[in-house]
Amino acid sequence: MLQISPIFLRKFSKPLEPASVETILAEPVPAAPKDPGTLGQQMHEMMATLYPFCRSITGAGTIQTLNILKKYIPLAIHKIPSGIRAFDWTVPKEWNINDAYIKNSRGVKIVDFANSNLHVLNYSVPVHRQVTLEELKRHLHTLPEHPDWIPYRTSYYKEDWGFCISYNEYLKLDEEVYEVCIDSTLKDGHLAYGELYIRGETTDEVLISTHICHPSLCNDNLSGICVTTFLAHWLLQRKNRYSYRFIFIPGTIGAITWLSINDMKVSRIKHGLVAALLGMEGKYHYKKSRRGDTEVDRVVEAVLSRSGQPFDITEFIPYGYDERQFCSPGFNLPVGSLTRTPYGQYPEYHTSADNLQFVTPAALESSLDMYSEVIKMLELNRKYTNINPKCEPNLGRRGLYSLVGNDAEHKDRQLAILWVLSLCDGTNSLLDISKRSGMSFDSISKAAEKLVECRLLVEM
Amino acid sequence: MLQISPIFLRKFSKPLEPASVETILAEPVPAAPKDPGTLGQQMHEMMATLYPFCRSITGAGTIQTLNILKKYIPLAIHKIPSGIRAFDWTVPKEWNINDAYIKNSRGVKIVDFANSNLHVLNYSVPVHRQVTLEELKRHLHTLPEHPDWIPYRTSYYKEDWGFCISYNEYLKLDEEVYEVCIDSTLKDGHLAYGELYIRGETTDEVLISTHICHPSLCNDNLSGICVTTFLAHWLLQRKNRYSYRFIFIPGTIGAITWLSINDMKVSRIKHGLVAALLGMEGKYHYKKSRRGDTEVDRVVEAVLSRSGQPFDITEFIPYGYDERQFCSPGFNLPVGSLTRTPYGQYPEYHTSADNLQFVTPAALESSLDMYSEVIKMLELNRKYTNINPKCEPNLGRRGLYSLVGNDAEHKDRQLAILWVLSLCDGTNSLLDISKRSGMSFDSISKAAEKLVECRLLVEM
Amino acid sequence: MLQISPIFLRKFSKPLEPASVETILAEPVPAAPKDPGTLGQQMHEMMATLYPFCRSITGAGTIQTLNILKKYIPLAIHKIPSGIRAFDWTVPKEWNINDAYIKNSRGVKIVDFANSNLHVLNYSVPVHRQVTLEELKRHLHTLPEHPDWIPYRTSYYKEDWGFCISYNEYLKLDEEVYEVCIDSTLKDGHLAYGELYIRGETTDEVLISTHICHPSLCNDNLSGICVTTFLAHWLLQRKNRYSYRFIFIPGTIGAITWLSINDMKVSRIKHGLVAALLGMEGKYHYKKSRRGDTEVDRVVEAVLSRSGQPFDITEFIPYGYDERQFCSPGFNLPVGSLTRTPYGQYPEYHTSADNLQFVTPAALESSLDMYSEVIKMLELNRKYTNINPKCEPNLGRRGLYSLVGNDAEHKDRQLAILWVLSLCDGTNSLLDISKRSGMSFDSISKAAEKLVECRLLVEM
Repeated sequence: MLQISPIFLRKFSKPLEPASVETILAEPVPAAPKDPGTLGQQMHEMMATLYPFCRSITGAGTIQTLNILKKYIPLAIHKIPSGIRAFDWTVPKEWNINDAYIKNSRGVKIVDFANSNLHVLNYSVPVHRQVTLEELKRHLHTLPEHPDWIPYRTSYYKEDWGFCISYNEYLKLDEEVYEVCIDSTLKDGHLAYGELYIRGETTDEVLISTHICHPSLCNDNLSGICVTTFLAHWLLQRKNRYSYRFIFIPGTIGAITWLSINDMKVSRIKHGLVAALLGMEGKYHYKKSRRGDTEVDRVVEAVLSRSGQPFDITEFIPYGYDERQFCSPGFNLPVGSLTRTPYGQYPEYHTSADNLQFVTPAALESSLDMYSEVIKMLELNRKYTNINPKCEPNLGRRGLYSLVGNDAEHKDRQLAILWVLSLCDGTNSLLDISKRSGMSFDSISKAAEKLVECRLLVEM
Repeated sequence: MLQISPIFLRKFSKPLEPASVETILAEPVPAAPKDPGTLGQQMHEMMATLYPFCRSITGAGTIQTLNILKKYIPLAIHKIPSGIRAFDWTVPKEWNINDAYIKNSRGVKIVDFANSNLHVLNYSVPVHRQVTLEELKRHLHTLPEHPDWIPYRTSYYKEDWGFCISYNEYLKLDEEVYEVCIDSTLKDGHLAYGELYIRGETTDEVLISTHICHPSLCNDNLSGICVTTFLAHWLLQRKNRYSYRFIFIPGTIGAITWLSINDMKVSRIKHGLVAALLGMEGKYHYKKSRRGDTEVDRVVEAVLSRSGQPFDITEFIPYGYDERQFCSPGFNLPVGSLTRTPYGQYPEYHTSADNLQFVTPAALESSLDMYSEVIKMLELNRKYTNINPKCEPNLGRRGLYSLVGNDAEHKDRQLAILWVLSLCDGTNSLLDISKRSGMSFDSISKAAEKLVECRLLVEM
Repeated sequence: MLQISPIFLRKFSKPLEPASVETILAEPVPAAPKDPGTLGQQMHEMMATLYPFCRSITGAGTIQTLNILKKYIPLAIHKIPSGIRAFDWTVPKEWNINDAYIKNSRGVKIVDFANSNLHVLNYSVPVHRQVTLEELKRHLHTLPEHPDWIPYRTSYYKEDWGFCISYNEYLKLDEEVYEVCIDSTLKDGHLAYGELYIRGETTDEVLISTHICHPSLCNDNLSGICVTTFLAHWLLQRKNRYSYRFIFIPGTIGAITWLSINDMKVSRIKHGLVAALLGMEGKYHYKKSRRGDTEVDRVVEAVLSRSGQPFDITEFIPYGYDERQFCSPGFNLPVGSLTRTPYGQYPEYHTSADNLQFVTPAALESSLDMYSEVIKMLELNRKYTNINPKCEPNLGRRGLYSLVGNDAEHKDRQLAILWVLSLCDGTNSLLDISKRSGMSFDSISKAAEKLVECRLLVEM
């Protein structure tokens, strides 16, 4: 089990105000403050609140989700009308659903949307009629290799209706007449997404994006939503060098719409991460940006390397989450994706087994910690210039070159100072210096801090 | 044994008209068309026709050879007068030979040019006199390590005469007076070469060069002459993107003369290959251009890699065939050399054992196939630009992103489309995309074709 | 044992005039010339002369040392006044010492500067008083892990006094009152260094720097002083392409002062080496320049590789000798450091055990030979341009392409000529050509010489 770092807990000076289903139902919030638990437990609790909503790329479930997020962070909710052009795409009609079921000939509901929103093919058009078993089967989706699990299926861009059921239930179906009912609507409305901008010292931005279009599925991607929310909460309390932009968007069409609206502003994005799949205790996985050698690629690699946790790093491929859009050749943004076990590489992926039991507080907390470590290194990884570049400065005079003291730690401190002075010629970041010197980023970073204090370095 | 690809046979829509010794001797061509055999057999038959001529860097044997080639392809024959300057060189006098022999004291011909043109030191000056055994031996060349074989020797740039005989014949020579006769001429004349230009869509050229100066030697280089001729024949029937320039030239002085005459035009050469040693069943060998990273270097490597046949690739060295001249630093053309076992690495090299039995129809056919595969990849290996570079285009709307279908082949097709869209930013050729994606050139090339049809890509 | 190369001995046409302590004491030089011994023996003898002087970063010992060097080479001695600013530093007060001792309560000298100048903490301020054992111990430096050796310690930049003694002597000290006396002065004066400029064909310079601030220590750095002096002597007798600048300077402050004075001229330095630790029979060690890929880095690597002697090469680190200053980012000069076993990696380092017995004539001679080989390669490693770059020149006409001769050596000579012609396009040095061709630098260099004679190459 992962250790919850006490240092990390201390970073969160203000206690988080956890939202709950009760809040949504307008019930009174319990008056007595109780122990909020670890950050992992808090994220898991938040996830439990969000779990029931029937999210999709449009519709009420997404709005409900964003409204819960507003309890944690000052999110702006943007609504883009159906029919708006976004590059080669068009914002689709809004989909909403009230109820859905299959009744057998005796009028018994054998499949009920109220039990699991995965039962309905996401974006199903409305239907209400009698069907034979044969016709019904053409609209059923199952998972024979996991006969107890309900698969998750969508049909966003082709009008269709369908039900997803466990293979065991499927096998029980008799030759009779069924009543199928999907009480959904598909009409002009909006595509909604959430955005939070946290102003820093500079207008250079770090983009954190996560997809919000999946219904009752926890690892993919309530885990991404919760970790990202908590990360934003933490950044809101820090004084940051970079400005941070968090976007909570429907996959593909959401990212495309957002890029289309923000085309003129994306040049401010200096680093970015697509956050997803962060609740499962698998090893970390980083997929590099299309450029493959950007600062965020190098920083994530350094953070994973020093974390002591197992991880994989892979080159960019044009398949995956919304890094596909951010890294499309016309943008080619420095955006990678930091997840744990990648999509499709664990059996519970896109099934009812990706539930609240599948994700753990400890995994969520470790993921949050990893993201915060990446951000801390990005914040610290500046480029400085030695303003006394000809010969070494007289360090002894400044108390930086101790005339006594011969222990290893002391020597390391001095060597770090010499490396920083030697390589701060405006071309090397502190991470570059850490790599070339073979010294830890922390040592190099502390040396730079000391030299800035002594006015021997200035930031480029 | 190599399989003769039926696909390749189909490429040759018009049957080749094989020339024969009879044609040269002005005898009537047999009226009834017979089965021309495989392409390998046809090339071997052509080689049998060319085998007897006494080729050299100038003279009648070369002209006879070029005239046979004209039966297959519309070759232009150029004749450059002796004495013309070509960079640091001068076109030499023309050498011709009628007869040559050595008679023993009883008047018996013990060495006869009529049996093998290798018997005469190529470019021997005329001689006719009585010599002692001692003097004779100073003019004899043998190969003690292969006592049955006649070596091939030349003396182009130093006036000399000599005979080449098997070591076994040499051992039989008695202490007596011999009559030596070389009925040759060395006087002002011409250096001849053949050239064929096949116009393509662009004036960018692919150069294919082969040397024609070796007498009765099959692998080096009648194999190069025949494969190159058949390759030209094939290209004449295709619609090509590139223009193709074939040159059939004497080694060294021929290439230097050609470059001297065409100095102003060589900038059109975008890719080139020196063809030789293509009739022996050894593994393929590619020697890179001096630049070492040109497109032809990468294309040949890719074609050899996917061929499943054994091969070696070596860096450029300034020794070998006419790539020495094409790659000299003042030209530095993107020209490599694709052969099978390199010169000097098989014992039959430059001996009478490099004969019609030494080369095989199957090896010739495989070589032709390899050259045609290289050309097909060069033709297809374009650079395209994605004209919808911001975000992915809506592939579903265009039928490129199937909404059903989940099989591996289908997924590969879609992934190839995504890779092509991602990397077609004007800097990557399709081969570059194939390498970065790890997908086959064929998949990438087909994906690009589809996207051009849908007007999502344009050629750079 | 190392072989003394007779070729190297021949390089020194004029016999060296060894200086001796007698010279300094103005005694008559012995009239009869005696065998000067090997170069290694001559350097060892020079070292014996220099050994007794109490060198420091300023003061008489350094001046005495430079005066001895003037007996060998026409050195200029420069004296920079105390208080002069040198970048971030100030030239310190001059330190001189006449005598120093510790007497026990019976008036017996138990530590005497006359026995070893290492006994005094270098740069000790004057002191003369009675001290208790307790107070004395606060001013004593010992080396418990080597109880017979006296350590070498300095306190240049913090006013202090102290004695260095063997740990065995330390253990014998009784609880009594001691008289300590250091008869030193620390007042305004000068920092002195030696400089020798040897004009060559061009004003491009090779810098050879060595530190002269260590008292009776042989490997560090009388070995550097002696090898550098003999190297300069050798260069004075050669006709050189480069100009050579030798500097004999106090460590750190000397190099900083020299750079400060010569700031405008350092752009002439094309290659440089910091010479030290050259008298011990350990393996060679080359520390690259900060740039890491300069010509001197490549030349030293090539010379060490072909020497057949064991060696290590390490990347630059900002710690060590005066390469720290030459490679500081504001200068970033192409200066590496060629030593044998590095400082701190042998137990005798900075102790009385680094004495005349610790260094050997053979090691000194081998080091001198290695430095001279580096210089010979630097001198030869030119960039030429083939002025007949289109096609190969006609080598046979110039006698460069023998028409007979087939032995391996002959073929190598021809191949070297072809490589030089192929790669002399103005971008490759002869060492680059040697590396790319896999042929020895000597073969390539000889081929270039031949081609220059034939007017086929000109220097860039």
